Amino acid sequence: MIKEITLQELNPSQFIDEKVNEIRNIVGTGTAINALSGGVDSSVVTMIGHKALGNNLKTVFIDNGIMREGEPARVAGLFKKLGVEVNVVDARNEFFSALRGITDPEEKREAITQTFYKNVFGKLVRESGAKYLLQGTILTDVDETVAGIKRQHNVFEQLGIDPQATFGYKIIEPLIRLRKDGVRKVGQAAGLPPEVFDRIPFPGPALSARVIGEATPERIETVRKATSIVEELLKNSGAFQYLAILHEDRVTGMRDGKRDFGQQIEIRCWDSKDARVAKPTKLPFETLEKLADTILRNVPGVVSVTYNIATKPPSTIEAV
Amino acid sequence: MIKEITLQELNPSQFIDEKVNEIRNIVGTGTAINALSGGVDSSVVTMIGHKALGNNLKTVFIDNGIMREGEPARVAGLFKKLGVEVNVVDARNEFFSALRGITDPEEKREAITQTFYKNVFGKLVRESGAKYLLQGTILTDVDETVAGIKRQHNVFEQLGIDPQATFGYKIIEPLIRLRKDGVRKVGQAAGLPPEVFDRIPFPGPALSARVIGEATPERIETVRKATSIVEELLKNSGAFQYLAILHEDRVTGMRDGKRDFGQQIEIRCWDSKDARVAKPTKLPFETLEKLADTILRNVPGVVSVTYNIATKPPSTIEAV
Repeated sequence: MIKEITLQELNPSQFIDEKVNEIRNIVGTGTAINALSGGVDSSVVTMIGHKALGNNLKTVFIDNGIMREGEPARVAGLFKKLGVEVNVVDARNEFFSALRGITDPEEKREAITQTFYKNVFGKLVRESGAKYLLQGTILTDVDETVAGIKRQHNVFEQLGIDPQATFGYKIIEPLIRLRKDGVRKVGQAAGLPPEVFDRIPFPGPALSARVIGEATPERIETVRKATSIVEELLKNSGAFQYLAILHEDRVTGMRDGKRDFGQQIEIRCWDSKDARVAKPTKLPFETLEKLADTILRNVPGVVSVTYNIATKPPSTIEAV
Repeated sequence: MIKEITLQELNPSQFIDEKVNEIRNIVGTGTAINALSGGVDSSVVTMIGHKALGNNLKTVFIDNGIMREGEPARVAGLFKKLGVEVNVVDARNEFFSALRGITDPEEKREAITQTFYKNVFGKLVRESGAKYLLQGTILTDVDETVAGIKRQHNVFEQLGIDPQATFGYKIIEPLIRLRKDGVRKVGQAAGLPPEVFDRIPFPGPALSARVIGEATPERIETVRKATSIVEELLKNSGAFQYLAILHEDRVTGMRDGKRDFGQQIEIRCWDSKDARVAKPTKLPFETLEKLADTILRNVPGVVSVTYNIATKPPSTIEAV
C-alpha cells in the first residue's frame, strides 16, 4: 500500500529536495535515463532527475507518431531553455507497425507499451548502459490499474511484473505518492512554466486513444488536426480537459450535391476537479458552431461533428 | 419530366377534387390498395383514396418492426376516428429476417424495399385481388433518387423499373407533382389533424436508418426508446426535425466503478425550411443535459450521448 501525500501535507520545495537526495542515493555515480513525453508527470520527473543527476541523467523524447501537432520540437525547445538537453528519437515506424490492424483499445495500449519498453526505449536503455529508469507514475495511475478501470502503461509492480527481470533495469518513481494536483505544485516549484504544469491531461496511448478503431498514420493525422483546432479554440475556456475523438462509424455527408460517406469527429469538453466525476462544459453555442465549422473546413474527410452531452459517470473522460 | 405544382399555384381543395376524379377514372369499379405508414405522404394518399373509392380502397398498415414506439395502434386508432378502417399486418419477422447481417445502409434500404414489395405487401396485393396501388411518392423523392443523393424506396419509373411487370400491379401516385409543403396543405384540406400533416419527417427505412450497422431487434429497440425520449422532450422546440441515432462504435463507460464498454446515442435537431440546407438548433444547455440524462437513465446499454453541431452541407439530416 502506497501512502498518499495530500496537497495539504505537501511542501513542494522540501519534496523536491527529498527526491533529489533519494535519487542520488540510489543511482550513485551510475547513469539514469528517462523518457519525456511533454506531459506534466514526465516533465516534473525530468526536472527533479536533472537536478539530482545533471548530465548523468539522459532524457529522451520518443516521437511515436501519435503525439499532438508539432509536439517533439516544442517539448525539446522548451526544455533546452530550461537547460535540459533532450534527445528526440524518431520511432514512428516502429509504433505504426505495432498498431497495424489492431482495433481493440486494450490491445492498442498493450502494443504501445510493448513497443515502448521492449523495443524502442528498452533498446535505448540497453545502448545507454543506464541501469536506472526514472518514471512519472502517480498514485492515480496505480489506483486505476488496481481497480481495473484503466490499464496504465507505466504500472508494473502492482501487476506483479518485475521490470528488472523483464526489461533489465530498475525503475525509480519519484511521484508515486502524489496525485495530479500535487504534481502540478511540484512542477511549479521545480521551475516549469505554467504551459507545462497546468497542461490539460493527455492519455498515455496519446492520439491512438483518440481514434476508435485502427490507429493508422492517416487516421492519426485526421484526429491530430482536429485536436489542434479544439485545443486552440478552447484554450481559454477554463475547462478541465477538452479533446477530439475520431469515430470509426461512417456517416452520410454531401459533396458537390451528392451523397458521400465521411468521418465524424466528437468533441468532449469537461468541467471537473479531479477527473473522478465530470460534466460537459456549457460552451456557448457560437463556440460549438465555430468548432464544427473550423473542423469541417480544415480536416479532410470529416463531414460530421458532435459535442458530448453525457456526464461522467456513466461516461468516461476519454472515449476508450 | 414531372411538372411541379408550387405552393403558390396549389389550390388544395381543387387539387383533392381533381385527384379524386383521376383515381375514380383509373380504378373504375375495380379495387385499389394502399400501404399507410403514418407519415404525412401516405396519410394524405389514404384520405384522397378513401374519398375517391370508399370501401373499394383497402388500406393496410404493415408493422415492419422498425417503427416508432406504439406506432401501429396509434395510426390505426387515428384513422378509425376519421372513418377509415386500417388493417394492421404483423410482418416483423419477415423484415428482421431480411435485415439480418446487413450493415451497409444501401443494402438495408434494398432489403426493406424487397421485403415490402415482393414479399409482404406484394402478397397482400395479390391476395386482395387489387390491380391498383396508391402510393405517396412526392417530387423530392424523384429528384433525390435521380440525383443519386438517396435511393427512395418508392421510386420505380425513374429507375427504369415497370411495377406492373415486376410486381403485378399498376401504381398511382397522386402527390407526385407536390413537394412536402404542398402535401401538408393538401393534408390539412383533406381533414387530417395537425399531428399528421405537420408531423416531422421520418425516413422511409424507418428506425433501420437510425442505427449505424446491423438493425437487429435489440438495437432497434434501443434506438426506439431514445427516439421516443427525443421526440417527447423536443416536441415543443419548434425545430424542423429531431432524431436519435444509435452508433455502432463502442465507447468506454463506468458501471459500479469499473470500466464497461457501452453504446452511444447521437441526437440531431435541425432548423430548416425545406431540408435542403439545415443548421443544428441552438437548444438551451439545460435541454441538452435533460436529454442526455433521460436517455442514460432509461435506455439500457447506453453510456454516452452527443449532440450534432455540424451544418448541412456537408452533413445530411439523417446519419445514413
